[in-house]
Amino acid sequence: MYDVAIIGTGPAGISAALTLKALKKNIILFGNIALSEKIRRAEKINNYPGLNAISGEDFAHNISVQLKSLNIEITNKQVTGIYNMDSHYGILCNTEVFEAQTVILASGVEPIKAIDGELEFLGRGVSYCATCDGSLYKGKTIAVICTSSEYENEVQYLSELADKVYLFPLYKDVSISLNNIEIINGIPKQIVGNFRVSGLIHSKGELDVDGIFMLKSAISPSALIQGIEMNDGHVVVNRNCATNLSGVFAAGDCTGRPYQYAKAVGEGNVAAHSAVKYLFSKKG
Amino acid sequence: MYDVAIIGTGPAGISAALTLKALKKNIILFGNIALSEKIRRAEKINNYPGLNAISGEDFAHNISVQLKSLNIEITNKQVTGIYNMDSHYGILCNTEVFEAQTVILASGVEPIKAIDGELEFLGRGVSYCATCDGSLYKGKTIAVICTSSEYENEVQYLSELADKVYLFPLYKDVSISLNNIEIINGIPKQIVGNFRVSGLIHSKGELDVDGIFMLKSAISPSALIQGIEMNDGHVVVNRNCATNLSGVFAAGDCTGRPYQYAKAVGEGNVAAHSAVKYLFSKKG
Repeated sequence: MYDVAIIGTGPAGISAALTLKALKKNIILFGNIALSEKIRRAEKINNYPGLNAISGEDFAHNISVQLKSLNIEITNKQVTGIYNMDSHYGILCNTEVFEAQTVILASGVEPIKAIDGELEFLGRGVSYCATCDGSLYKGKTIAVICTSSEYENEVQYLSELADKVYLFPLYKDVSISLNNIEIINGIPKQIVGNFRVSGLIHSKGELDVDGIFMLKSAISPSALIQGIEMNDGHVVVNRNCATNLSGVFAAGDCTGRPYQYAKAVGEGNVAAHSAVKYLFSKKG
Repeated sequence: MYDVAIIGTGPAGISAALTLKALKKNIILFGNIALSEKIRRAEKINNYPGLNAISGEDFAHNISVQLKSLNIEITNKQVTGIYNMDSHYGILCNTEVFEAQTVILASGVEPIKAIDGELEFLGRGVSYCATCDGSLYKGKTIAVICTSSEYENEVQYLSELADKVYLFPLYKDVSISLNNIEIINGIPKQIVGNFRVSGLIHSKGELDVDGIFMLKSAISPSALIQGIEMNDGHVVVNRNCATNLSGVFAAGDCTGRPYQYAKAVGEGNVAAHSAVKYLFSKKG
């Protein structure tokens, strides 16, 4: 059982991890070993105190060194759900479960709004994770909504399993081209089906599909954890970064604007301290 | 008229200044050219993302370079009061007044609680600034409450003006020793007087004095600006770092725990964005 599970390796998640490690807590940090896309992609950061006009790449490098020196590992698994297990939380990664007393959500903000039916059909034909769920669609027809060229390797992986792939690239300069991939230039609007996904309505028509993969850098917290209070796409938190769920804290872009490194780093720190306070009060 | 006056050159004030500069605002930054004592004095910071195990001195050096490269100057004057001038604020530094549309308080947290009468007699015998008010006490008898050996040069300056100085050093290893300085080993308790200061009651007796200097790194925001809502020694702010006073924001240690670089840096960023939003709404 971990003290704290941190979801996300952007500036907020990293800040929380460093602080919790300094406070000798037993943590698990879920995210991308290459850190968040947002960290790496920044061209030049001009307003982060202490690092003058640093590039995202250099910032990511600094953080990797820092994590290594403090023996903080990144668990490179996609979190697919978080479940309240009464006195603690279960963090589901496909079929694996990790347990933690508290959770810090630092999962960033979705660059693209969820579409109609996305949350409703999650786990019943909608998946965020090609490597997790791809094998369920061997020989089937799927739609893939892809937000960045960065995920084209996952599209390729899916095309090797599925019989037919309808690809909705939400970015420019698509470079993938395979026989069983059909590129659709419509905008996905609504997922339909009864118990399971059966089709996808887009701006230029409708497709019959067995499954839909949404490849994007951030998943909505409301898709991850039931009952979390959201407002306009953001997790509602108080000054202590506490959410409406006892033992669940949130930090960084997922709590709202400004979408800035400094703000995220600050909230990661606050959420870490709040988690420690919560752990202490639980013991008493 | 400045867009924003920032009070304090700790991590929060610096973060606000960098962000406001990036957003092309016209700012004035009040504080110590050597940055805050809190920045310089840190031995090793282990949880600031991007700077691995950095010393306070190196952090201060980095920030100085950063400020210089962005042409941000520190106005090395002690702010002695902030006044609401209806549509904007006047920032008083002894007898000089600076005007700004908005104010960001980032003045840190007092290491020592205010004593009885301190706020009541501020400007009527109580002063926080030796260089500002020292000359008012030529040939007089004063008490100096000094929180750090760092201010001993100010004590010396005062001793050159005053006839007699009762020194209350609230630190160990006092190194100053002059004929007209008497070191008192009591703890200051209460300032007394009618309209002006006439005496100081301490734990071991009472002294007749004409004035009292409190030399400390942070002044309570409630002493600087009338009507600001405080709770347990901290400025009350919402998630946007807005105080109860329209156009006044606060960030860093002065808003409460955790007293951490990352938290302060985050709030400085948020306060800067809120100030910009406020400026924009005022225009409309």
